[in-house]
Amino acid sequence: MEKIVLIGAGNVGYHLGKRLFEKGLRPIQVFSRTPSKAIQLAESIEADPCSCLVDIRRDGTLYILAVSDDAIEPLSEKLSLHLPANALIVHTSGATPSTVLANSFSHYGVFYPLQTFSVNRPVNFDQIPICIDAPHKRDFEKLWGLGHVISSSVHRITDEQRAVLHVAAVFVNNFTNYLFGIGYDILKNHQLPFALLQPLITETVAKIKTAAPQEMQTGPAARRDKETINRHLKLLHEFPTFQTIYRQMSQGIETLKK
Amino acid sequence: MEKIVLIGAGNVGYHLGKRLFEKGLRPIQVFSRTPSKAIQLAESIEADPCSCLVDIRRDGTLYILAVSDDAIEPLSEKLSLHLPANALIVHTSGATPSTVLANSFSHYGVFYPLQTFSVNRPVNFDQIPICIDAPHKRDFEKLWGLGHVISSSVHRITDEQRAVLHVAAVFVNNFTNYLFGIGYDILKNHQLPFALLQPLITETVAKIKTAAPQEMQTGPAARRDKETINRHLKLLHEFPTFQTIYRQMSQGIETLKK
Repeated sequence: MEKIVLIGAGNVGYHLGKRLFEKGLRPIQVFSRTPSKAIQLAESIEADPCSCLVDIRRDGTLYILAVSDDAIEPLSEKLSLHLPANALIVHTSGATPSTVLANSFSHYGVFYPLQTFSVNRPVNFDQIPICIDAPHKRDFEKLWGLGHVISSSVHRITDEQRAVLHVAAVFVNNFTNYLFGIGYDILKNHQLPFALLQPLITETVAKIKTAAPQEMQTGPAARRDKETINRHLKLLHEFPTFQTIYRQMSQGIETLKK
Repeated sequence: MEKIVLIGAGNVGYHLGKRLFEKGLRPIQVFSRTPSKAIQLAESIEADPCSCLVDIRRDGTLYILAVSDDAIEPLSEKLSLHLPANALIVHTSGATPSTVLANSFSHYGVFYPLQTFSVNRPVNFDQIPICIDAPHKRDFEKLWGLGHVISSSVHRITDEQRAVLHVAAVFVNNFTNYLFGIGYDILKNHQLPFALLQPLITETVAKIKTAAPQEMQTGPAARRDKETINRHLKLLHEFPTFQTIYRQMSQGIETLKK
């Protein structure tokens, strides 16, 4: 039986811990620098909480680092002073190469769930792509098996590929959400409810399940309808940032082949 | 019983005609300059097809202009020479003021379904916001009733509000779809399947049903994580347009209050 030590109880650690527990792979210990967070998650998944690095169990068969990107490297250095040299350690970050762990551990890898997590929102793990990699075959196989326990979508993704995936994720998640926020602000400014745009947003996403997004591109920029574009830019005079983005996105769309 | 004449058999005309028919409000006639389109839609909703303006019936109680934005004004001028002076005429455009009809008709209005339509995709009309307006009370009431027959979401929206809605719709639909296309291109360039991003996209949209988009903003720009931003910009070196958009969107997100 795997002895998993979960290091980090933030958005990713929380949902990963819950999912492992749900699937019968209860982590033995949960570490968080914030004792209350360690206790809260640990209690809900019947693990032991821990808030001091020196208390982290040394007999784990897998250490999962679910911490912020910039904490991964310094934390793994500290852990290497405490844990056995042959411990297997993985991080869960889309933006960080696996090799930042290589300075401290010879057995390392990545276990990256490609999704946006919030503690207070349940997630359907079964559909989440789990992107894994590890230089040693046996470590890889262990992660591969673990991935399949919690999701039906497991992929070998190299550091280079994961970096590409992560930048693409920024476009379709962070930037898309920002556009939704712009829609929200424009409507709010005229006392119109954002709910009016919800069916349109739902359909925008539903459409790209059946065809490439480029084939679904519509609107004034796709039609090269300068008159409407100029009218829109005028309407946005109260929002210079939105004007700039409108111009930039329209120019981008105009470069698409008709 | 309403005698509806549907002018235009494109994406909007097609779905509107189908929905009216489905709800027992069969249009009596379908006009399209392209005879095959007029015939195809008319046959499927048991209406008469027509491709010459002079053949448009003069006894309609409501003329719905579902044509491209730039055709609305010239077409209404031509129709005014043929139809009775007191005919009620509406257009279905988000981008066009109702007043372009006022030069030709005294009874006019707007009947704008806020959705993106493609002929080959079925739509769930019941959720689509129908944005209506008309200067005359009785015309307005007629459109209000008609709206409720085909949707549960009917709203009085003035020309000014509709212009605002339309620009917001461009952000959340056209521009969002363009971002999806960028994600698609970046992945394709590295032989990665777009399907990897689908659960993330689905969740991005699901999240804003429970909270304002701004509250859900995450990612390197929201964290002011310059290191990741610079790494992403480097990764995008093959796509200068995407680089520009990445920079612009990140700057926009950084202006949001933390």
